[in-house]
This record gives sequence, C-alpha cells and structure tokens, in this order.
Amino acid sequence: MTTDVHADTHAEANEDLVAGAAVPPPPTAEEERRLQELYTDFGAENLVPLWTQVGDLMPSSPRPKALPHVWRWNTLLPLAERAGDLVPVGRGGERRAIALANPGLGGQPYATPTLWAAIQYLGGHEVAPEHRHSQNAFRFVVEGEGVWTVVDGDPVRMSRGDFLLTPGWRFHGHHNETDHPMAWIDGLDIPLVHYTDTSFFEFGADRVTDESTPDRSRSERLWCHPGLRPLSQLQNTVSSPIGAYRWEHTDAALKAQLELEAAGHPATVERGHAAVRYTNPTTGGDVMPTIRAEFHRLAAGTTTRTRREVGSSVYQVFEGTGTVVLGGAEHQVAKGDLFVVPSWVPFRFAADDGLDLFRFSDQPVVEKLAFARTHEEDDA
Amino acid sequence: MTTDVHADTHAEANEDLVAGAAVPPPPTAEEERRLQELYTDFGAENLVPLWTQVGDLMPSSPRPKALPHVWRWNTLLPLAERAGDLVPVGRGGERRAIALANPGLGGQPYATPTLWAAIQYLGGHEVAPEHRHSQNAFRFVVEGEGVWTVVDGDPVRMSRGDFLLTPGWRFHGHHNETDHPMAWIDGLDIPLVHYTDTSFFEFGADRVTDESTPDRSRSERLWCHPGLRPLSQLQNTVSSPIGAYRWEHTDAALKAQLELEAAGHPATVERGHAAVRYTNPTTGGDVMPTIRAEFHRLAAGTTTRTRREVGSSVYQVFEGTGTVVLGGAEHQVAKGDLFVVPSWVPFRFAADDGLDLFRFSDQPVVEKLAFARTHEEDDA
Amino acid sequence: MTTDVHADTHAEANEDLVAGAAVPPPPTAEEERRLQELYTDFGAENLVPLWTQVGDLMPSSPRPKALPHVWRWNTLLPLAERAGDLVPVGRGGERRAIALANPGLGGQPYATPTLWAAIQYLGGHEVAPEHRHSQNAFRFVVEGEGVWTVVDGDPVRMSRGDFLLTPGWRFHGHHNETDHPMAWIDGLDIPLVHYTDTSFFEFGADRVTDESTPDRSRSERLWCHPGLRPLSQLQNTVSSPIGAYRWEHTDAALKAQLELEAAGHPATVERGHAAVRYTNPTTGGDVMPTIRAEFHRLAAGTTTRTRREVGSSVYQVFEGTGTVVLGGAEHQVAKGDLFVVPSWVPFRFAADDGLDLFRFSDQPVVEKLAFARTHEEDDA
Amino acid sequence: MTTDVHADTHAEANEDLVAGAAVPPPPTAEEERRLQELYTDFGAENLVPLWTQVGDLMPSSPRPKALPHVWRWNTLLPLAERAGDLVPVGRGGERRAIALANPGLGGQPYATPTLWAAIQYLGGHEVAPEHRHSQNAFRFVVEGEGVWTVVDGDPVRMSRGDFLLTPGWRFHGHHNETDHPMAWIDGLDIPLVHYTDTSFFEFGADRVTDESTPDRSRSERLWCHPGLRPLSQLQNTVSSPIGAYRWEHTDAALKAQLELEAAGHPATVERGHAAVRYTNPTTGGDVMPTIRAEFHRLAAGTTTRTRREVGSSVYQVFEGTGTVVLGGAEHQVAKGDLFVVPSWVPFRFAADDGLDLFRFSDQPVVEKLAFARTHEEDDA
Repeated sequence: MTTDVHADTHAEANEDLVAGAAVPPPPTAEEERRLQELYTDFGAENLVPLWTQVGDLMPSSPRPKALPHVWRWNTLLPLAERAGDLVPVGRGGERRAIALANPGLGGQPYATPTLWAAIQYLGGHEVAPEHRHSQNAFRFVVEGEGVWTVVDGDPVRMSRGDFLLTPGWRFHGHHNETDHPMAWIDGLDIPLVHYTDTSFFEFGADRVTDESTPDRSRSERLWCHPGLRPLSQLQNTVSSPIGAYRWEHTDAALKAQLELEAAGHPATVERGHAAVRYTNPTTGGDVMPTIRAEFHRLAAGTTTRTRREVGSSVYQVFEGTGTVVLGGAEHQVAKGDLFVVPSWVPFRFAADDGLDLFRFSDQPVVEKLAFARTHEEDDA
Repeated sequence: MTTDVHADTHAEANEDLVAGAAVPPPPTAEEERRLQELYTDFGAENLVPLWTQVGDLMPSSPRPKALPHVWRWNTLLPLAERAGDLVPVGRGGERRAIALANPGLGGQPYATPTLWAAIQYLGGHEVAPEHRHSQNAFRFVVEGEGVWTVVDGDPVRMSRGDFLLTPGWRFHGHHNETDHPMAWIDGLDIPLVHYTDTSFFEFGADRVTDESTPDRSRSERLWCHPGLRPLSQLQNTVSSPIGAYRWEHTDAALKAQLELEAAGHPATVERGHAAVRYTNPTTGGDVMPTIRAEFHRLAAGTTTRTRREVGSSVYQVFEGTGTVVLGGAEHQVAKGDLFVVPSWVPFRFAADDGLDLFRFSDQPVVEKLAFARTHEEDDA
Repeated sequence: MTTDVHADTHAEANEDLVAGAAVPPPPTAEEERRLQELYTDFGAENLVPLWTQVGDLMPSSPRPKALPHVWRWNTLLPLAERAGDLVPVGRGGERRAIALANPGLGGQPYATPTLWAAIQYLGGHEVAPEHRHSQNAFRFVVEGEGVWTVVDGDPVRMSRGDFLLTPGWRFHGHHNETDHPMAWIDGLDIPLVHYTDTSFFEFGADRVTDESTPDRSRSERLWCHPGLRPLSQLQNTVSSPIGAYRWEHTDAALKAQLELEAAGHPATVERGHAAVRYTNPTTGGDVMPTIRAEFHRLAAGTTTRTRREVGSSVYQVFEGTGTVVLGGAEHQVAKGDLFVVPSWVPFRFAADDGLDLFRFSDQPVVEKLAFARTHEEDDA
Repeated sequence: MTTDVHADTHAEANEDLVAGAAVPPPPTAEEERRLQELYTDFGAENLVPLWTQVGDLMPSSPRPKALPHVWRWNTLLPLAERAGDLVPVGRGGERRAIALANPGLGGQPYATPTLWAAIQYLGGHEVAPEHRHSQNAFRFVVEGEGVWTVVDGDPVRMSRGDFLLTPGWRFHGHHNETDHPMAWIDGLDIPLVHYTDTSFFEFGADRVTDESTPDRSRSERLWCHPGLRPLSQLQNTVSSPIGAYRWEHTDAALKAQLELEAAGHPATVERGHAAVRYTNPTTGGDVMPTIRAEFHRLAAGTTTRTRREVGSSVYQVFEGTGTVVLGGAEHQVAKGDLFVVPSWVPFRFAADDGLDLFRFSDQPVVEKLAFARTHEEDDA
C-alpha cells in the first residue's frame, strides 16, 4: 500500500550506459562493411541488436518523453465552450471531451504515457449517451452543478468538489438537467489500455436509463457510512462500489488533519500538508485497478519537500493559489489549472494563502508491477 | 469474506459415530481382563485410546456444550447496580464487569466457548484504571452516556448505540464525567485467548492519561470520512483504527437499506432485514482478528429464515421487541436483553413493530481456520 | 509468514494481576454478607464477576495448563502392539489410535489444548475404513512401511520419514498390504475443532476405494516438481494438494542447508541448525489451515538458543539422540520419542551426534489470530 | 490466478464506434470553418478532442498493432553467429543480444508492446559483464551448454531445457567456460518498463563475481525440494528465489500429466495437452511481477482449441514439429522457431509427432490490472 523511500544512490552514481561505458576498439573498414551488411540482414529478418540502443532503452533512471506541463483553466474553459457551440454530443463522438496532449508525446491525446485527462463539456439539457468500456474512468468537478452521471442505472449528482467513479465495463451516460452548461475533468487509463491492447467498448442506451435526479446515489446510500459495510455486499470488488466521493467529506477530512496537527497529534503527511486517498471500501485499496486518486491541502505558507516518484501524475488546482516547481521550472497556478508530473521528475509545491490540489496517478500500476521508488530531496 | 451456504446432507444423513457404527463382536472375559489391564497401562503412561470416545470427540455435526440462553436486561441492570454499591472499581479487580456464564459451560464466565460478554458498570465520577492485554475488546452501549474510554491516549465518548473498540495490546481506561452511573456491554475473546494460552496483560496508569471529553475521538476525526484514508496512515492494521462507530451512522445505513428495498433495489440481506458489518477501513475486513460485529434491523413484521452457522454469537436487543427462536425454543425479547446462539443451533428472529439487534461472533476465527459452514432451512 | 521477535519486557515486568494489585480495603461484615448475597444472585442468573478471577483469566503471560512432557517410543510401541492384539480396527472405533494425553489436561486425549497426537497401529492386512471429517490430519512415519493411505481415492504409500496429509473433509482410509504390522504418528486439530464446535464427520466405504499400491501418489505426480504448477490446477486450495512429502526430499533439503552453511552461505536458522517447513505449493503457506509442520536437523554438537513461543508444539525424534530442555527440566531423547512444548515454555535442544526432529504446531492459528510472539533468550 | 472465460458476445456484436454510430448532421461551411479554427486553437494549447478519434483509441475489442509473426531458428542462429564474429561483448554494449522486432511495431526492438525477446550469443570463454536493472529478465535454453549466469553472486549453470531467472535489480553476468559458443533466448519486460518510465540501470563488475561452475546453484539447493521451504527464508519475495528451473523437472511433470490422463485421471488442460506454469514457491504465483512463463506439451496428433486472450505472448518451439494457426494464417514450426501471439488474436496449435512449446507472456500485468478475458471458440 505504501511507497517505500529507497536510498537513491544508484541513480545518481551512474551516467547513461553508452556515455559511461568502456567503448570497444573501432572496427576496421572491412569489419564496418560486414557489420553494416549484418545490420541490413537483421532488418530484413525483423531483428534489432541490443547493443546499438541499450542506453536509450534502459536508462540509468527514468527519462520520460512526457514533459511537465501546465494547462490553464481560463484557456481550457473558453475552448470547451466553443466546442459546445460547434460540436454535437451524441452517438459516434460519444463525449464532448477535449484531452490534454502532453507536448512530449508527439501529439497523442495523452497527458502521460498511461493517463488520459480531459475537460468534458455538457450544454444545458444535453445528454451524453450510455456506453461502457474496459477503460476505468472518473470525473472530478472543479466548479458547477446540474449534471447527473448514471452508472449502471444509478443516477449520481455531480457538484463542485465531488470525485465520481465509472470503473471499467459499467454502463454510464450523463445528462444535464439545467439550462446552463457544465464542465468537469475526466480521468481515464485510455493510454495504458491502448498500449496494452486491452480495450473493449460497447454502446448502450442513446439516453440515460434513469433520468431521476436524486441528491445521493444508491451507491452512496449503501456504502457511505464510515466503517460500515452492507451485509448484502460481502464480495470484494475490483473497483470501489462508491459512485461519488462528496466534497463535504473530503473537506472535513482535510480540515480535521490540520486541526489535529495544530493540536500536536500526528495526522498530516508533512507539516502543513494534509492529504487523503480515495479508497475502495471493500479492500481499503485504490478506487480502481489502474488509477490512484488523492486530494492534498497545503495550509497557507506551506512548502512541500521536493520529491521524485516512479510513475506519472496529473494535478488540478481546486482552490487557492500557489507555486509548483516541476523539474526545476516554477509555475504560478490558480483554480482549475492542470499540470502533469512525469515519472521521476522532481516536484515541489508551495501555497500562497492555501492550496487545494486534486491528484490522480498510475501508482497502482507501478506498485502492482513492483517498480515503485520514491526519492525525497533533503531541502535545506 | 462471505460464508458459503453448503448443502447439508451429510449432517442429517449420519447418526453419531458410536450409535450408528458396526459394533465389534463382544470380547471374551479374558480379553476383557487384558483390555482393562491395557487401559490401566495406557492411563499410567498418559495415553488415551481414540476408539472409546470417537463419537464424542468427533461428532457428525457440532454438538456444543454451550446452550442457547437469554439474559434479561431488567435482571442484569439491578444486579450491576448492587455491585456498584458493594464493589470498588480499581487496580486489582480492574473492571466492575459481570460476565454472562453460559449454563452449559459449567460455571465458567464464558458466554460461548470463544466469547466473553459482560455488563460493565461505572458509577458517577469513577475511573477504571488503564491496562492493556492481548485480548481484543469492544463496548456496545444500549443506553446512557457520560463515560469516555481512553484508548492509547485518545478519549472516546460513549453514548447510546455506539460501538467502541479497544483492540489487543492497546492501553485503555474509562472515566465517568457525570454524577450518574453508566452501564454498557463488553465483548472480548477472553475464552479463546485463555484456551489458546495467548494471554499477555500489563498494568498502565491508575487514572486515564487524557481526561478531556471531546465529542469525537481523534481516531474518528482521522478515519470516519467515508471512502477516504489519511495519506499519513497507509500501513494496513490488524484491527480497525476507528475508536467509535457512532449510532448516527449505523442508524442511517440501516434506514437507507430499508428505503432502497422499498424502492425496489437490492440492499437488504433478506426481505425486511437490513444489516451492516463493522469493518476495518484499512482492509474492508473485520474490526478485530477474532471478533466480528454486526447490527441487524428487522422491519415491523419481518421474520428471518431459520439458519445454522458454524461458530457462536451473542446478540443484544438494542430497540424494539420480538421473538427469537433458538434451537426450537421461543423467547420474547425486549430492549437490552442478551442471548447466545451456539454453533450450529438453528435460530430465527421475528420483529413485532421493529427489532434492532447488535451482534458479535467468532466468525473471523471460524473463517480463517476454514471451518465455516452455513445452512438455511427451507421455511415453508 | 514469519514470527516476529518482540522485546519481552512487559511479561517479565509484571506480577500476576491479583498478586501485584492494590487490594481494595476489606469489606465490613455487613458488606461481606451483602456481597455473598450478590454473588449468590449472580450465580442464580448465570453471571460471574470478573473481579474475582481476572488474574487467572488474563495472566500477564501465558500460563498453560498443559505441561511439557516426554513420551517414550519404546513404551508406546509395545502398548500399541498389545492394542493390536486386543482391539479390532473397523467401523465404529474407526482407528486403532492411542492419543498422548497431556498430564496437565485432566485426562483428556489432548497433547496440547489445540493438538491431538497419537500412535496409530495397523496389523498385517488390516484395513482402517474410509471416513472424512472437518478435522485436519496428517501422518508422520518414524519407521516401517507397507501401508497405503487412500485420500479421496488416491493411494499414498507410507514409508519411513514421509509426511502425509489428509486435510479436512477428504475421505481417507488405510490398508496394510503386508504380513507385518506398521505404526506411525497421527497429528490432528481434534482439540481445537472440539473446542470451537466445528466438527463434522461422515462415514465412507468400509474398505478403501482404491487398493492399488503405487510408489507415488497421483498428487505427487501432479505437484512434486519443484517450482512447477499444473496448468490444470490454478485455483489455490486451503490445504496443500500434496499427499506425501517424501523423506528423500526432506533429507536432501536439510543436507543442502548444512553444506551451504559449511561453505559460508546463509542457509540455516542458526549455526548447525537446518530446518524446513512443509508448505502448500499453491500459496507457499502452511500445509493446512490449523497445523504447521516442520523438520529440524541439528548437526553433531549443536545447541539451539533458548526460545519461547506463543502457541504449542509436538515434536518427535526421527533419528539421533540428544537433550531437550523444556521449562528448565532436561530430558535425554532418542528415536521415536515424542514431547510437547506448551505455549511460552522455554525450550532448548542439543544434539549428541546429530538430532533429527519432526515438529508440528498450532502456529497458523496463533498467527492468523494475531497472537504470535517469540522470545529468544540471550544464552551466554 | 486463473483467467476466467467470459462469454464474448459483446465483442462480436458491435462494430467499431465510428462506423456503427449515428452520424451527426453535416456542418455548414461556416461551421466547418469555425471548427477548423477551433481545432487549430486546440493544437496550439496542446489539446486533442476525443470525438475525432474515439474509434481508434477505444476499439470494441483489442486491435493490436503488433502482428502475429514467426522467426525461424535456422535463420536466427547464423545471424547470431555472424554477430559473434563482428561484435565484441562487454561494457557498453553489455550483451550480444538480437531482439525480435515485431513487424507491426515500426522497427522498435519489441516482440510485443510489453515483451522483449532476443537471441543472445556468447562465444567460447567470453564474459558478459555484470549489471542490474529494474527490468525483469529470464533465459530459456533451446540447445547447448557451457555457460553459467551469475545472479547476485550465485553461479547458475545453463543447459538445454532450463528456464533461468534474473528478476529486477539483481546483479547478473554470464561467462562461457568452454571453447564453443552458446546461444539462448532472453525474455524481458523492456518495452513495458520503457513505456511506463520505470527503468533503473546500474553497472556492476566487469567480470562475473564468482567464476565457479557448480552443477546446481545455491538457490536450487535451498529451494528446489518440492513443497519444502527453508525456515531461514520465510519472507515472501516479489520474484521467485529459484535461479534455474531444470529441464528434468519440467519434462517429468509433463510426462506425468499425460500418463495420468491416459489412466483416466484429470491432469491436463485439454485432451493431449499437458502444461505447467513456472512459479514463485514463496507465493505459488508467477515467477516475476510482469512475466508469466509456461511450458506446454502436445501429444502426437493433438490439436488445441482455438483461443483468444487479452495480453500478448511469445512462444518458442523446444522440440518436435507442428502447425500453429495465428489469426487465421497457418505456419509449420520446428525446433527453435519463435512466434508471437498478440492480444486477442485467435491461436491454435497442432502437433505432428509431439510438440513441446515454451511460452512467456504479460498475463501477470493483464490480470493485476483486471483486464483479463479469455475466449474459447467452439471448434466443431
């Protein structure tokens, strides 16, 4: 469950393979000719030698193509509004979602190699039709209300600060009950599923299967009682059965941590830094098999230690302003801004008058495959 | 996690071993003499033959010495009050607790072979000193308020309907902040620990180490946010970190199940029968390694199916009235009444105008040791 | 999987509760009278106060009723032979098994509170009929051969040094294919099953269902290839699917450990002390849910450190001679001798020219219920 | 542990998203102009709309870029020999390994998106220097002998039919003790590690740290005793502690399965198809966190059912000849030939006089991330 902190001497001590290596003696012209001939023959037989590329393939520490990058909410939202005018939502396009395309990933609609992050926009009284797919998905709402997402027939209200799940292979659609549009963030494992060739997709109803608009979903009424489990639901599930993690609970948990810290009790991750992980109540583990989600609150004036982690993350500023340092570059951030932290890139956050950050990452993947490492710098 | 329902043909199909067996031919007098001599020699060498006792040792289905039994709250409480007058609480006696002694267990202070259940009574302004032990303990409050239990320095308010944990080896003491006495139920695994020779016990402070009287314990402030886990607490723990499971949550969860059922959704265990299990949020499993705790609510007029389970349980009526049928005998029960269901004894409950039942059992033991079986009768 | 070594300051630092406690002021005669009256009323209502017995119920460290004890093979075997002459084996008595009755346990046929250990004796051409029960069982063969045990239809040869499993609820019977009798050790969790009221028992065929006498059982042919798992058997099983752990493998593993140690590599538990645990290859864990089995080899002249463990064990000397110190008393032991180590009793072994010890224990129970502790004395 | 067989109606029932969808009404010229402007603005802000690419990103069933392909041993080996003449092995290039480059993956040295497969060639008396990396690696030997691989200081002999492990972050190097070259197959998770940005790499000794040439590695002497676990090694490990899975055991296990099948007992996967999985004895699970390895034997004349699985595999023919049908195309295969089965591509094998197949796959990844599905066709 926890990411261990490894001493990180090895990563610093070595140069890249090719640079630091004992270079073999140069070949003669004849040898060079025969070598090129061999390489040609390799190519003809769909073969590639390791020795010409080991340093790129197997670097001494992660060297992600994905770059740290910040997307501004006040840029994103107007673009989404323009799409709202021009692009119908419905069967075929399925969703009016606009993906963050990491500038290091060659134009692919991927925030990181494993994670998809998009702003989704639904106009007043619009309906995004139902479908299901093996990809795991969630929504996080930085502002607005009025949309219900219907997950396997259970209508789930979407409101500011809520974190909402649609785990793999559950039918889901959205409908806007109001006259005004609403935008939110979608997070999925689309890149990972695409890469591993594990995608299944199926159409569902053209409208949502339950148009009621309850305040609380059935999943919450069954599951959102702290420490209690329905006796009718004793089978553990791969993903959390909770449809919505409400802001009131997240906020209360973070407040309590800072109050406990102020009273001298252990509660926070580091001084002034409260944080919760969204979990699957049937196991205590992550909400979905491929995606971890957390919420971090930095008290006014707090600066985090500089960390590096194997695996990639996407953050959204929920409230407040502050500074994020990603791979050495400093960025001012404000409400709604999104940014990406690729694998092993050092990151540090500082709050102005307080900074609330939603985060999701591929850590469950990294941990299950036993690749997790964390490094904390000794910030003097 | 779930108890499977096995077809139970074997238990019905067989008589006891000795009764149903092909009896060997009777020995001659000389053989009988030599046999008695052999048995004497066995005894001298601390040996006992299997064949003289196999039917009792290994019955065809569980034949518990513990009996179904009902203890009445209106009998228990006055006796506890008399003890309050006569018996000081404090170092040595440690607790003014009066144990249910199952009439089948020869006067031992055991509700069942594995479970201890007692009424504990603390007078106004009294203090039960701190200690810790390998035994796992909980309290359940059927009425009253005014006492705080302090668990490893964390003061936990005790009020009607609350379920409170003091898992093994955590220091704990109680103090009554009011002028009036308070009584509640203690549940422990004392018999199991005694039997398995696993008891460790240590004295602590003569008074509780924190006399403050907060409304919510620190454990609740950290942990009682549904689906959220503090990032500072990522190590799973053997027992739940939650000090108090509050009545408001239990009640809300049960209400929701019955409402969902009424609206046509799956939510209850059986028609009219809502139930929750208290869980360890770090794992989704039982609150402590040896004790399972649940709360059951029967809607007015509901009758449960007749069941038998391997393992023993203790119930307390929290509210309402009804009928419990234990091994064929019918008992009227009311608020505060306690009763025991030994292993494999058929039981069935019926609510008058509604019946709320707190339950604890040794099911985690039975399941971990792979002895779990459940039988549901086909009540016509 | 591992038993942690806890610092054991608490157990030493405290006296028993009653002895070390602040005794309350003596009651007046009137108080004493009313107290006796109260106690009488308690008794009438099947109630027992905690304060009169807390020290016995919850000792500061385990105070087992079971005693360390040694049974001699050269006493046991002749008694078993006499039983062979006088007591038929067959339906009803089921098995000609003679149990070690711990002298501290009041004549019950229990080696420890949780474990049954017996010598079983089967005459030439005799058959022990088939049955099955929830109790987990194994056999260990200190000498002899010629019997096959048939487990769910799979005939398993029994020979010196073999450890053979009949996990809970599998039909099993034995048949002796030779003219000479054979004796071996049975180990079961009969006391634990009896205590927890989890016994189910069913008769099977009056003879074994497969009278063939293969050298290797089908279970071994499927499973006894190191590190390999049949693709047709991917479901993990509660108990090991291996019917027989052969002596040749046990012996080779122990030899290898001592050779590796001699060559300077980590391999043994402590200097001169090689040991293996019998495991379930589907999980790497214990062979059965309630019983751990191990084999220990002490090189000539080796003395083990003095240890105490929560939980009880039974040992049998397989080969060699040596000294065992149990709770301070020293015993010379030789081939076939059996001895018991109750919970928390200090024990130490010393080999003369080498000592081979088979061991079984209730450690899986103690570990699953989170009661495990180990103490190693600092033998100067 | 097992891959469930799901009914696969959904994958067949749907066309691709775009093809099967209700196409929105065509935009006007002005709308089209504004749409292109919007797309341009998206691009400038590193954004990509979902609706233009959903069918490719999220296909109705896996549509891998990797292609089924066969590499011939009698082509590979001569090319490796030529590399042996021309390319030195040593620091920098690290290994004389030639990777299978799937023809669908654009020239990358990847057998599948997740798996690396290469032929490695070590000349007489050559040494491949030590290094370690987070990538998990194994070797499989289709022919030859004379090389020892040294894993964290433990020399492991490599011989025909052996499967040898070098799990992540263990130092390893190879040395050839003979005058003749040796070639074998390397399998790693290089593509997966590269993709997830989890690579760490460190140089070690320029020669191997132990040049001895024992018949059995220390790991085998400790661990390769069926069902036995050293008591000194009770911590479970992420990867198997066994350095070499010897051919004699694999062969014996497969033989036994076919003999048991012939005798009427359940033992094989399907008629005539024996198979074992290489496992981690501390858990019963896969040998390494990202790679599953198995060995399959088809009796003469056996044809397997046509299957599809989510996730990719690489096979090598170890012995015999037969036919493999991959995605409808039939290939004759013989000793040493390698072939790839991408995700969800139907595959079927048929043996001539018997066919022995080594297989490795990314199934542990697919299963841990909960994407596993299997489809078996109803071959008439």
